[in-house]
Amino acid sequence: MRATVIHGGFDVRLQEVPDPVLVEPTDAIVRVLVSCICGSDLWGYRRPGPREGGPGRIGHEFVGVVEEVGADVVTVRPGDVVVAPFVWSDGTCPNCRAGVHTSCLHGGDWGGPGVDAGQGEAVRVPQADGTLVAAPVAPDDERLAALLTLSDVMGTGHHAALAAGVRPGSAVAVVGDGAVGLCGVLAARRLGAERVILMSRHEDRSALGRAFGATDVVAERGEDAVAAVRDLTEGLGVPHVLECVGTQLSWETAVGLARPGGTVGYVGVPVEVTALPHWPMFGRNVSVHGGVAPVRAYLPELMADVLAGRLDPSPVFDLELPLADVAAGYAAMHERRAIKVLLRP
Amino acid sequence: MRATVIHGGFDVRLQEVPDPVLVEPTDAIVRVLVSCICGSDLWGYRRPGPREGGPGRIGHEFVGVVEEVGADVVTVRPGDVVVAPFVWSDGTCPNCRAGVHTSCLHGGDWGGPGVDAGQGEAVRVPQADGTLVAAPVAPDDERLAALLTLSDVMGTGHHAALAAGVRPGSAVAVVGDGAVGLCGVLAARRLGAERVILMSRHEDRSALGRAFGATDVVAERGEDAVAAVRDLTEGLGVPHVLECVGTQLSWETAVGLARPGGTVGYVGVPVEVTALPHWPMFGRNVSVHGGVAPVRAYLPELMADVLAGRLDPSPVFDLELPLADVAAGYAAMHERRAIKVLLRP
Repeated sequence: MRATVIHGGFDVRLQEVPDPVLVEPTDAIVRVLVSCICGSDLWGYRRPGPREGGPGRIGHEFVGVVEEVGADVVTVRPGDVVVAPFVWSDGTCPNCRAGVHTSCLHGGDWGGPGVDAGQGEAVRVPQADGTLVAAPVAPDDERLAALLTLSDVMGTGHHAALAAGVRPGSAVAVVGDGAVGLCGVLAARRLGAERVILMSRHEDRSALGRAFGATDVVAERGEDAVAAVRDLTEGLGVPHVLECVGTQLSWETAVGLARPGGTVGYVGVPVEVTALPHWPMFGRNVSVHGGVAPVRAYLPELMADVLAGRLDPSPVFDLELPLADVAAGYAAMHERRAIKVLLRP
Repeated sequence: MRATVIHGGFDVRLQEVPDPVLVEPTDAIVRVLVSCICGSDLWGYRRPGPREGGPGRIGHEFVGVVEEVGADVVTVRPGDVVVAPFVWSDGTCPNCRAGVHTSCLHGGDWGGPGVDAGQGEAVRVPQADGTLVAAPVAPDDERLAALLTLSDVMGTGHHAALAAGVRPGSAVAVVGDGAVGLCGVLAARRLGAERVILMSRHEDRSALGRAFGATDVVAERGEDAVAAVRDLTEGLGVPHVLECVGTQLSWETAVGLARPGGTVGYVGVPVEVTALPHWPMFGRNVSVHGGVAPVRAYLPELMADVLAGRLDPSPVFDLELPLADVAAGYAAMHERRAIKVLLRP
């Protein structure tokens, strides 16, 4: 089969790899219907030079059809359309039972040693019962793109909003107008937020943010953004902030936007964070909640809303390409010509 | 009157200062019955050289008797025994109403410009209605020391426990065996924690911790402490951690002790923190809640327990000195010969 392999900075290639086969009785083989490129895939793509440890498989978001299951698999069967979260997990360990599937004692990452990744034609899924969630739809259902967002960005935006404590009537600020930030807007509104202030300087992204329910858009950055949001909130800031970027500036902005006693829900991979702003956090009692999103925990609830037509994050995909053009997809996201690229094998 | 003035590193002196007089109609004059030295007072005491900005008044914990009130003061009157929280606040601004009195829009610090501090014979209290809480006791009541802990350390330990989400049945770890950490043990038990693991290497402090309800004491530090607590908790760590120190090592330990999805409630002034450990926080979804404790918010509730005999943090005072010996008190705390020093004018 063909799958995407990252060789180093700005070098991803679709190439022939071995077809997946069942290894453990808890495995399933899934043929990929749709996959996509994540903002976090760009961290490795932008790192110059050959990839540390040699070329590796990449992609952690996919929806597919089950082709084969191991002897122990009971929750999915061949023919099922399934959504895969961006981390695989057994669903039964103490951390999964506590809702933190990303810390599964028997789980792991797509593209890890001996494990396939999502940007390919098929995937061996470890811990299939714990990992996959079947969707009662046909393989050509028009909601596949919306379901695909539940692999990562929509679940991650939801995690940020939950972690920030958003509830009916809340005033919220969202730092980050990428796919996760935009899904954070959707998630905050879905949880009942009345006011959602999106930090965005890009016209296309702020337009989508407004379509997703943002009530205000602030184009300033850093201290100017903090001043602008305080102007909108009687000088206080907002009680709930979603940090969906992961840079030093985004963090300083997020903590600055929070009113005393407020909460920052964060999901941005903190690759470019030097030090969280602990003095303003301490002095103003700003809490910091979140981390890598256990999207598996949220999949059933969010899927129900997608299937009922109450939730459609699919507009975050503003470019669709055949898997063969995956390299062009990375380039488009790197150059900010696309918010998020959907790939069809 | 006499009051403590800090001149620089290892140089505190009791000296003559002007008697306090009413300045604003919202002021009260309070004659101090008991005050004390805080671990955070030592940060300035240990900084070598003359104090930046010149000599300054010091001390932010006191219980006293109201001598005189301004025309606008209605909640306390001359003769009342009152407890002062370690920050003064108006009690009516949006931040006070949200329970974050330490961010009062019209409040401030004891010893700030033009404001008296606690380690003296008398204090002008700004915003007396918002700041002071009257206790229905006589000036010679034996519970004055217990009430004095509500100025800071007991309220601060309570803030750490609340921020960490401690509830009935919780398993908790406490990092720090100073007065605040020990009060954190008391607070966690008071909130119903079933298991409280205190990190302590000092025999006298761990004994007091056990008397306050710690069920386990771990003498190791850093990674060894994390390993020891995981051994006690089926390899997982605890869901609730109280960080009551404020150093890089204490923070790394605190985050390491938390199980995935757990919460660190923190109150240690982060003077010696370089960078919060954001990667383990992110990867394991460890939340960080807390900051400078709005003890004013907790005073009525904790005072009720002290007066009813259900709560007695006074054993944290293991040395009592006349105010004239305040310099000896600082030396005793600096050299760890005392946990906390009580001063009587």
